[in-house]
Formats: sequence, structure tokens, C-alpha cells
Amino acid sequence: MIKVGILGVSGYSGLLTFELLLGHPDVRVVYVSANNTHGPLNEIWPRLNGKTNLQCQKFDAKKAIELCDLFFLAVPHTASMDVTPRLLKANKKVIDLSADYRLKDLKDYEKWYEVKHKDTRNLAKAVYGLPELYRQDIKKASLVANPGCYPTAAILALAPLVSSQGSQIESIIIDAKSGVSGAGRKVTQGLMFGEVHETFKAYKVLFHQHTPEINLYLSKLSDKPVDVTFVTHLIPVNRGILETIYIQFKDDLDETKIRNLYNKFYKTEKFVRVLSPGLQPELKDVVGTNYCDISLSVCKEKKLLVVISVIDNLMKGASGQAVQNMNIMCGFNEQKGLL
Amino acid sequence: MIKVGILGVSGYSGLLTFELLLGHPDVRVVYVSANNTHGPLNEIWPRLNGKTNLQCQKFDAKKAIELCDLFFLAVPHTASMDVTPRLLKANKKVIDLSADYRLKDLKDYEKWYEVKHKDTRNLAKAVYGLPELYRQDIKKASLVANPGCYPTAAILALAPLVSSQGSQIESIIIDAKSGVSGAGRKVTQGLMFGEVHETFKAYKVLFHQHTPEINLYLSKLSDKPVDVTFVTHLIPVNRGILETIYIQFKDDLDETKIRNLYNKFYKTEKFVRVLSPGLQPELKDVVGTNYCDISLSVCKEKKLLVVISVIDNLMKGASGQAVQNMNIMCGFNEQKGLL
Amino acid sequence: MIKVGILGVSGYSGLLTFELLLGHPDVRVVYVSANNTHGPLNEIWPRLNGKTNLQCQKFDAKKAIELCDLFFLAVPHTASMDVTPRLLKANKKVIDLSADYRLKDLKDYEKWYEVKHKDTRNLAKAVYGLPELYRQDIKKASLVANPGCYPTAAILALAPLVSSQGSQIESIIIDAKSGVSGAGRKVTQGLMFGEVHETFKAYKVLFHQHTPEINLYLSKLSDKPVDVTFVTHLIPVNRGILETIYIQFKDDLDETKIRNLYNKFYKTEKFVRVLSPGLQPELKDVVGTNYCDISLSVCKEKKLLVVISVIDNLMKGASGQAVQNMNIMCGFNEQKGLL
Amino acid sequence: MIKVGILGVSGYSGLLTFELLLGHPDVRVVYVSANNTHGPLNEIWPRLNGKTNLQCQKFDAKKAIELCDLFFLAVPHTASMDVTPRLLKANKKVIDLSADYRLKDLKDYEKWYEVKHKDTRNLAKAVYGLPELYRQDIKKASLVANPGCYPTAAILALAPLVSSQGSQIESIIIDAKSGVSGAGRKVTQGLMFGEVHETFKAYKVLFHQHTPEINLYLSKLSDKPVDVTFVTHLIPVNRGILETIYIQFKDDLDETKIRNLYNKFYKTEKFVRVLSPGLQPELKDVVGTNYCDISLSVCKEKKLLVVISVIDNLMKGASGQAVQNMNIMCGFNEQKGLL
Repeated sequence: MIKVGILGVSGYSGLLTFELLLGHPDVRVVYVSANNTHGPLNEIWPRLNGKTNLQCQKFDAKKAIELCDLFFLAVPHTASMDVTPRLLKANKKVIDLSADYRLKDLKDYEKWYEVKHKDTRNLAKAVYGLPELYRQDIKKASLVANPGCYPTAAILALAPLVSSQGSQIESIIIDAKSGVSGAGRKVTQGLMFGEVHETFKAYKVLFHQHTPEINLYLSKLSDKPVDVTFVTHLIPVNRGILETIYIQFKDDLDETKIRNLYNKFYKTEKFVRVLSPGLQPELKDVVGTNYCDISLSVCKEKKLLVVISVIDNLMKGASGQAVQNMNIMCGFNEQKGLL
Repeated sequence: MIKVGILGVSGYSGLLTFELLLGHPDVRVVYVSANNTHGPLNEIWPRLNGKTNLQCQKFDAKKAIELCDLFFLAVPHTASMDVTPRLLKANKKVIDLSADYRLKDLKDYEKWYEVKHKDTRNLAKAVYGLPELYRQDIKKASLVANPGCYPTAAILALAPLVSSQGSQIESIIIDAKSGVSGAGRKVTQGLMFGEVHETFKAYKVLFHQHTPEINLYLSKLSDKPVDVTFVTHLIPVNRGILETIYIQFKDDLDETKIRNLYNKFYKTEKFVRVLSPGLQPELKDVVGTNYCDISLSVCKEKKLLVVISVIDNLMKGASGQAVQNMNIMCGFNEQKGLL
Repeated sequence: MIKVGILGVSGYSGLLTFELLLGHPDVRVVYVSANNTHGPLNEIWPRLNGKTNLQCQKFDAKKAIELCDLFFLAVPHTASMDVTPRLLKANKKVIDLSADYRLKDLKDYEKWYEVKHKDTRNLAKAVYGLPELYRQDIKKASLVANPGCYPTAAILALAPLVSSQGSQIESIIIDAKSGVSGAGRKVTQGLMFGEVHETFKAYKVLFHQHTPEINLYLSKLSDKPVDVTFVTHLIPVNRGILETIYIQFKDDLDETKIRNLYNKFYKTEKFVRVLSPGLQPELKDVVGTNYCDISLSVCKEKKLLVVISVIDNLMKGASGQAVQNMNIMCGFNEQKGLL
Repeated sequence: MIKVGILGVSGYSGLLTFELLLGHPDVRVVYVSANNTHGPLNEIWPRLNGKTNLQCQKFDAKKAIELCDLFFLAVPHTASMDVTPRLLKANKKVIDLSADYRLKDLKDYEKWYEVKHKDTRNLAKAVYGLPELYRQDIKKASLVANPGCYPTAAILALAPLVSSQGSQIESIIIDAKSGVSGAGRKVTQGLMFGEVHETFKAYKVLFHQHTPEINLYLSKLSDKPVDVTFVTHLIPVNRGILETIYIQFKDDLDETKIRNLYNKFYKTEKFVRVLSPGLQPELKDVVGTNYCDISLSVCKEKKLLVVISVIDNLMKGASGQAVQNMNIMCGFNEQKGLL
């Protein structure tokens, strides 16, 4: 039984991490904190009424360190790198759901997140928490950078391809669509019900901050640098991401070969499902689960492959994957608390 | 051709008033203002692109008075009573969409809106802008207090009854449901997409500030004071109000008589439609229109009448009714710009 | 480990029952059937991909009886009473989610469901599966009539009151609102996206078929017959029921006394949460859970109590309650698979 | 004053055409028909209550021809070509909202719509009703094939480019997203509220029947055949289409030049709005209007242009454009009834 702390429990991914751990037999959440909201956790989140007596507190590093073995940081970026050094120094395990430890190049971080990085020492040590690619590293990690929601869906959709066909790929376009919870729980005009409901739009066209994360981890897999075109849209639903990915090949495409490639790559992966020919994934089949569903469609004449991937942005795109990482770091069954 | 100014054009009812007037042949909007947002109106509201060159300005009373004959105040309550005295003094007509001039008893205003009233002089002169009841007064008014959205649906649903059967009524319960735009465009946690979508709740149970407005104008119609039970709910839609109203009678109810009462009362009213037996109104039949649809259902054994009324809260519940009032005040055809 | 069959697995409550049982350690689903859809269950419901290899078959009583100890009937009313006699005769336990065994008076059944009852023998034996009221009977039952979704929310909201204050109650009005899944998965014009989204309406005003079920079980608790006024509305959400209930008292109301009554009544009930003063329940706090949340608000001057109750219509209103009943019938921990 | 008939008035585009014409000063709708629904039009569409006394009838060619000068065919494809020959023979003008007269190659029609074409004689004469491209032809046409919703947004987004830069274009990918009303009002499992709400999916990936229509009319503009990649998705909203279009150039792209091209092409077009740099269009800015909004974003390094276009699928994508065509055919101001 490990003892866990959740920082940022007043946000959507903080809450979901808490709820997942309630059902996990080997874990006890003993500490929860938030920046601006304090008091009984079941008053902050009435749906937890009757399930917990925890008090949500202002973060107190000393106390937190005394109580916990492992921390989930479900806080905004820049807040993570403020607390992580101290937690690691006290020999705690840390799973960071923010963007702070994902990019390895300081210039990239500063360009896309528009702040200086304050913890370059641990940046190098952080393991990217995509279990399907980095399971062995995660086992030994004390700091895991939990992937972004868009990058999770993109990298899982493309990993089998770029890792074996990299030189065959001419270009990659990712047309991504996300539900509203992807933006977190912050209060802004643009995320008001009246501004989001019964509409649809693109945003941050060609300059979303998840672009370098996608490129970095795909490039690591490929024998040549990957540089995707990435456009994001907002769907009027609470949860879920769907990415329609267009891969232009240089030479002829063999659908059977591609399909075998994906099936083999994910053969032993519980949380990635490659759909049969003719089927297309949709949000409602993965919302509330830790699955990533992937379909493959080929246009032979155009040498074009269309890969569609869907995840629940709060599950496989955040809290579910974080719990999966915890399971790996702690030697638990990887699926515990997630099925 | 009259010249019109709209204050608070950056809110939902300000925008809709502007859009309705764009299609009105006898009116030109020459001045628009807002508190915190300035610049070209078609940048504030991209849907107006190509339809207007107006600049939205910080309110400047002198300039506004020079330019306009009539003003729509689509501002929050308390802001109206700050500007109205000056506009009236300059002999301008004013249609106030806020709550400032609806309640006549100062104590009521201060109790329910939690501020002191600053313009008691004009309060007494203001005419309640429900044309179906006060058309003759509106014709002569220089200040019209445009009714609240909930009260519009409630009073229209009950007026035929309380004005002729008041003493027969034992109790009235109004179970009201509103779309989100009823709360205006203010930015608050409770109106975020993630907090409103795919849920439903009651709010301000038994203490909504529209209660005294409903009671005041129904009591004026009745031979005894009316004191309704009023509970409000939030529907995850942008627009529309539906009120399910339970009227307990003291004695036996005659359905045909009640139905005749309503049909007669609204016989010449264009914007109130009493539905045929067996039909029930719904939001989508009135959204985008200035109609109020009303159904009548009787439970004879319980001496109970169920009246259901629906309106578009931004049309008949705000901007549509405001334009209707303007038409009456200016001697235009009452339906102009509204069909 | 008991072996379970689910009839009607192609509907929403059939699917959810299956999903709940997947996570139940003492149960194995070994048989699933549907009327018009056959084949691998994970093709009918792609979200089950990777979780089951079961085949959905046309119902075959002989085979089903050989394989299973207990059956969930998630089928339309009238279909249940066709198969139940044979299952009971083979000494199987049956939990019927349809309306077939809820009403005890044949005339009521035939009036409200417009068909003759075909299994009057078992009708008398069926236990009404509301554990908070009938736990002891459920323990010994072989046939449980799982309550309707509206009646579950209504009876739980009113049971403490009618069982102790029945003679004090003048009248009860239930203004009920339900998400769309309450109507099941049948394909009809009225439940198309384009007809339900961004609208709101009342339906079956004063003649919903759940009325006699509510009256029957409340009357059993009360020292005088209960006859509620019941009006239903459709909310544009997938899941959840909220009922706003107005109880007119004859004499003065003591809020503290009422509140104590509810707290005491549900003191040991895990799945009913009586909210603290000032709080109101909402759908999103119970959707996906087996909870019923209840708030109490008093208008002293009018001798009126407003009780608001919410449930997930597919959980406490159908599948969750069915699993709760199974746990009781089989001697499992009542909460197993439900938290 | 021309006299108009609407066939298929029980569908969404039939209703909207009727509503638009109610506000058109030079038109009177004198005849409406539908296949399966007859009786007072304001009972079929309660929102028309008080606005019309027309009876919706089973189509009777003789009667319709006697009464009307011009017909809107808002019927499913294949139904149009059954009635059009007779209407044209009687010298009536016809605007066909179905797909029957859009494709010119019989094999294409038969391949994509899976039926034989029955009216090849008129197929050749039909003018494609996209006013921005074919205004002069529409003026003289007696049969106008009103464009499909997806093709309208696609062709308007690409026309300036393919008509002048055709040889520079390497490839075009259209990632299209549509609201639910695009599928019409037919009753199918896939369009039920419970199947569409709170989800998102791709459908007909790489084989949507609007593909050949897009290719045909873009190819006519270009100096080389255009063959787009076209993938469609379903958004959980009632109305609106957004298309994100990726155009790969062979050589370097000059953003200013491209932007000038679009601004010049649409300089005098009322219903196409090219957005300023940095702005992106969204559904809510065009829903309820006849506008097509277009944004341009350039990725210089990749020689890639991203064009995003939005329309209301029922307005510019169907009924609005049909009225625009009628205005042109009859010599009315092109914007009449549309602003």
C-alpha cells in the first residue's frame, strides 16, 4: 500500500486521478492540495460526498513529504517545476501532468511556453511517460513527465509508422479535435457555455504548444527528423480527442503491410486497439476508459494513409495514463484501477 | 427614421437588439457603447462583419444625447439608473432592459438586488413594458422598464387567470427552466461549458430575484395579492425558457371555460399563441422568435390547472420585447422587425 | 462465482449492466442475447473491444437456463413476462428491468401499458427492488421487479415523509426532468438529435405511465393513499433525472424536524445522500454513480417543502440498482461493483 | 410577386426555405407538399403557428403547375428527377436542392448515388447554382442544381486558388466537419440523440458522395484536373459546416499574394467574407446567415496553405443559397430575404 499526494486536486485531471485511485487496491491518497480552494474535498467536489474525508489544503511541502511516497502534480505548467526539485530531493516519486518536463530543449520550452525553465537539472532526468514506448525507463524513473493529451493520441497513431517507415514519409498533417476539458478548468470568456456550445472552431492554427512535443518524440523513433503540420479544433463536448492524420508517402503504399505493422506493434498493448478494416473510432467508445482506438484507411492512388486515433483526453490523455505510469513505477499490474 | 443608441452592445441582449434593428426599416442605430470592450463593432461580434461600420465606444453621455432619439440600455442592473436620469432630462426615450425600474417598492429593490436605488424620481414614472398588459401606457411612456425573462413567461401564462379568477386560486407554483444566456455573458465558474454541459440543476431555490416582479404585476391584475412559489433551473441550451406552472383551485375547474378565457384574452395578440388541446410547447418552436406559446392541461379530480409557457429569453424575454416596446412608443407597426 | 445472463444487451441498460458486471469479482456473465442484433458483443458495442469474447445470440431459453444462475431482463415491457415464467420454473433468479412486474393491480397495468398481463401468477410473487425499502424481501426473492427510473427518484425523495407524516400532507406535485437515455435506444423521430438538442419540452403531461408505480409504493408507506401530480420533461443530456417535488403541508412545517427525519431514515444507506442546508443536487454529481442525492428546502409561510432528488437514470434508475439487487439476492456485499 | 411551390416541406431545408420566403417581399408561397405528412403546415411545424394557413398536400403535379411559377425541390435525391421533367415542360423554373442534377457524368452519378439517372435530357441543361461562380448562367437558367453543403464550403474556399494557381498545387486535403442537420431529417439509429451527443467521429472516410461534385467544379476552374482527398466528420451541433483545407504547393508561397488573390476574387461578393490575418472563422458567426467565412494561414517552410471555411449548411449550404438563386433567376436583388 503506497501513500499518494495529489497537487491540483481542484482541477479536472486532479479530480479524476483521485477518483481512479479510490478504486485502486494498492494505493491510498493521503494528501490533496490546491492553490485557491481549501476545505473538505467533498465540498469542492460534491460527487465525492460519502467517499472521502480528506481536507484539501494549501500546499505545504514539508507536510506533504512526511505523508506521501509518490505525488501526482495536476497543476498548471510552471507550478510543477517550482515544487518538483524538493520532492525529488526527499526521494519521492513524481508524476507530473503539466508540460514542464516534456520538452528537453530549453529553447523549445521557452519559445512555446513563454517562460524560462527553472529546473534544468531534473529536466534531463525526467522520463516521458508514454508506457507503450518507454515502459522500461518508466520502471526506473523517479520523475515521469506525463504526456500531453494531443501528443498521446498523435504519437500512438504514428509510432508504428515512423519507427519503421520514416524515410518513406513525405509529410504528416494532424487535424486534431478536442473536447473542452482539454483546456482545464480555468475561467475564461472563450470557454463559457455560451461561447462553446452549438459552435465549432479551429484555434492556435499552426502554432499550438503541443507541436514540439509531438515532433520531439516522433523524431526519436524515426531515422529522420519529423516535422508535423498540426491544427487544433474545439468540439462542444466535455471529453475526448479525435485526430485525423494524413500521411503522404513517397512510394506506393501496401495496406496489408501497414495494417500488419500496427497489429504487431500493439499486439501486447492492452490500452491500444487497432480497429478492423472498415471501422472508424469515435469518442464515445473510449470516453471513461484508458484506451486509444486507431483506424487505418488507405488511398492507394494518392499514396496517402489516413490514421484516425481517439482517446479520452482526461484518461489516456492525462489521469489514466498517470495512473498507468504509477503502476509501472511501483511494480503493480499496469492495468490496476484502469479497467 | 429614428436614431437609436444601444448601451451594453457587448452582451447577448445588446447584440440581439442591434441585429433586430438592422432589419428594421424605420430605425438607424447610430451609437453603440460598452464598458470594457471598444473598437469596431464587427470585431467585437464577428458575425456582424460586412453589416456595420459602427465603433463601439466607452459611454459618453453628451455625445450619445447629441446623436440619438431613443436608447436601449442593455447593461447590468445598477448601471441603468446611473445614466437614465440624464437621458430622460435631455428628452430622450429610454427602454431599460435591466431590472432597475421594474420594482416599485424601494425596499423590495434593495432587498432583492442588494443595493440602494439611486433614481427614485424616475422609478415612479417608468412603465412596465409588457405590451399585452400595458400597451396604452407604453405608447405615452418616455421610460419603459423592459420585463425580466422569467416574469414575461410567468405573467403571460397567468394574466388571463388572475385577472378574472383571482379569488378562486389557492396557490401557484412556478417550476421554471432557463437556457444559459439568461445569465448574460458574464465570466464565472458556474457558467463554464464544463460546469453546465451534460448536467441540470436547480439554483436560487425559493429566492430568485424575479419573484417580487412576478408577484407585483400579477397582484395588480388580481383582486387579491398573488404570492407565487418560484423555483428556477438551468438547462444546458443557449436560449429559451420553459415554465411549468401548477395552479391549485379552490373549487371545481371547467376546462372549456378556462380555455375560452385564454383564447379571448389573447385573441388579438400577435405574439402569444394559446395551443390547441393535447399540444405542448417547446423551446425550439419559439427560439429566434418573439412568440410566447402557452398550453393548458387540467386535472379535474385535483382541481389543478397546469399551464406551460415558453419564450426565447433573449427575444420575448429581452431584446424582442424591447423592440416591440420601441415600436409602440414610436407609433410604428408593433410587429415591425420582429417577424 | 455466479453465472449470469443478460437479455436485451443491445440496449443502454443491458450494456451498462454488462459493464458493471465486468468489474464485479463474484460474477461472470456467460450469456447475452438481443432480439434483432446478433454477433460478437464487441462489434455491437465497440467500446467493449478487448474486454469480452461473448457472442450476442437470439434468446434460446433452454441454452440460457443451462448456462446461467441468474438473469437480468433488460428488455422492453411485455417481453419480460414472456420469458420470466420459464426461467423461474427452472429455479433461476430473475431481475426484471422492465415494467412488467411492478404494478400489482392488473387493471392498472392494462390501463397504463395498454396490454393484458400474461403472467399473473408471478406478478404477485415479485418483490419491488428498491433496497432502501424492501431489502429483507429482496434477500429472499427469486423475482425482483427493478423500479422505474422516475419512481426511484420520487419514492426515495418522499419515503421518509410519507411514512411518518402522511396525514399532514395536503398534496404532492412532482415536476420531473429526464435525460434522453430514459427512453431507451429505440429509433423514433422524437428522439433524433435534431429534435432534442438545443430544446426542452414537457411530455405525457399528467399521464405518464410511471404515475401508478409512484402512487402504489408511496401509498404502501403512508397511512392514507398517496396520489401525486406528475409531469415529465425531456432534458437534452444523455443521462440523469432531476425531480423537483413540492409538498404542501396542512400545518406548520418544522425544517429541523424534517431534516432530522431524512437524515435518520437514510443514516445507514450508502447510496442515498441527504445534502446539507443550502446545497442543491445536480446531475453531474451522480451520473456514473449509484447515488441518489436529495436536498430539502422549506418555505415556512406557505407550509411548503421542496425536495429535489437526482439519480443517474441508467444507474440507480436501472442497471446500478439491478446490480445492487443482485448483490442482496446473492448475499454479496451490497456495494460490490458499484463504487 | 411570383408564386412559389416547395416540395419536401417536411424536411429541414424545406422548412427553412419556407421561412426565408415568408420574409421575402416579392414572393408568395402558394403550394407546399410532402411525401408522408399531410395537413395544416403549422401543425407539421408548430413554429409556423400564426404565420400560415397553407395545407401540406401529397404532391399533385397538375395542381402544382396551375398554381406556381417556380419550384423549390427540397426532396431526397432520385425524387427530384421524377418530377423535374414535367415541371420544366410546363415552363416552370426549378431549383433542385437534391443531388440529382449536380454531376454531369452519368457514370459518376450512378457510381456515387447507386441508382440510374432517369432524366439525362435535363441533366445537361441544369446550371450549377453557385452564384459566386455561375451568376450569369443562373440568370438565364430554368433548372438550377443547388450545390451540396460540403461542396459549397469547399469550392468557395478553393476557387480563387485553383482558378489562378492550379498548376502550382501539389495536393489538396479537405478535413470537413458538419452538424447533424446536414443528414436531413431521416430517422436512423446513427442520428439518434444518444448516438450523436457528447461524441465525435469520422464517417464515409475517403468515399463521401460529395467528392465528385467538389472535383468536377474545381476542375472546371483549373488548368489541370483537381482530385481532392475528402474526409467528413459529424459534430454534435444542429447546424454548420467547417472545413479545414490543406493545400500543398510545389513552390514557395507568398502569403500577401494569396491574400490579395482572395480579397480580389470576393471583393464584390456580399456573402463571402475573407477574414483578416490572425482571425479564424467559427460556426456561430455564420449560423442563421447566408455567409461563407474564410481564413488563410500559411506555413512558409512547408509550402503549405491552410484555408478554413465555414457556412451554415442549411443556409448557404442549402435553403439560403436556393433563395439567392431564385433572386438571380427572377431578377430580384440578390440579397433579398437573406439579410
